[in-house]
Amino acid sequence: ARPRVGYFYTGKTGTELMSDQLKKLKVRDQHSVPVVVNDQVSVYDAITTMFLEDIGTLFVVNQQSMLVGVLSRKDLLRATMGNQELSEVPVHIIMTRIPKITVCYKDDLLVDAATKLIENQIDALPVVIDRQDGQEVIGRLTKTNITKAFVDLVKDE
Amino acid sequence: ARPRVGYFYTGKTGTELMSDQLKKLKVRDQHSVPVVVNDQVSVYDAITTMFLEDIGTLFVVNQQSMLVGVLSRKDLLRATMGNQELSEVPVHIIMTRIPKITVCYKDDLLVDAATKLIENQIDALPVVIDRQDGQEVIGRLTKTNITKAFVDLVKDE
Repeated sequence: ARPRVGYFYTGKTGTELMSDQLKKLKVRDQHSVPVVVNDQVSVYDAITTMFLEDIGTLFVVNQQSMLVGVLSRKDLLRATMGNQELSEVPVHIIMTRIPKITVCYKDDLLVDAATKLIENQIDALPVVIDRQDGQEVIGRLTKTNITKAFVDLVKDE
Repeated sequence: ARPRVGYFYTGKTGTELMSDQLKKLKVRDQHSVPVVVNDQVSVYDAITTMFLEDIGTLFVVNQQSMLVGVLSRKDLLRATMGNQELSEVPVHIIMTRIPKITVCYKDDLLVDAATKLIENQIDALPVVIDRQDGQEVIGRLTKTNITKAFVDLVKDE
């Protein structure tokens, strides 16, 4: 058991200890399961999927199951405000597409992924593995995951 | 300047130091400016406001400027899927209303507010002041604020 009270040598200030703990956290420790849709499905079906799965971001894949786009609630809400028939518009028309998508990898530091979420003003990052013919989506990292990590850091003492 | 290397007495383990730092953070240090709409405005106008302000949650107030409801992107997206004329439906029909709303106060600990966001599965909390005739909205605390705090904790060393 580690000592709870006493003198001990760390060579670091309190803030540095905290940062060390935070810096250990990786994307793989916190990410959620991704939900993907094919790039040919309709905007209507994508919205239905979003409500059924109760998530805020869908990832769009091609026939080879490689990442081609991202659909946020904001993208879908904007689409509903147009005069289009939602069941006839495929999602690839309205999605944010490669190369405008920001991704992360499971071994990335959580703080680096969090920084990407903030700097790009997005709610979720796809967690991907690079393949020969594109990027396979293996996870979803959201501001909810970061918020949970924040709470766990305190409750975990 | 604080020492960066050396022996020092803290009486605490590293994890406890980290928690102390986190525990100091309050809602008042991190919250954003709230955007409110009157409960009589249409769903269409609320969606327009959400895009103009580029935020994910609107707070709804009555004639006395007191909090009566919350509108998320999810609430608005659901409304657009109905067969209603969005410019004719007032937001008080579709909003989440008191007493189902979870609020926080500016002196609350950030971690407690973050816990409310997770447990209630919501994106934002209104920061309020209790008044005789209701609750005045003075801020907006979101998962984005928590994610920023998380990043700042590491970058701040």
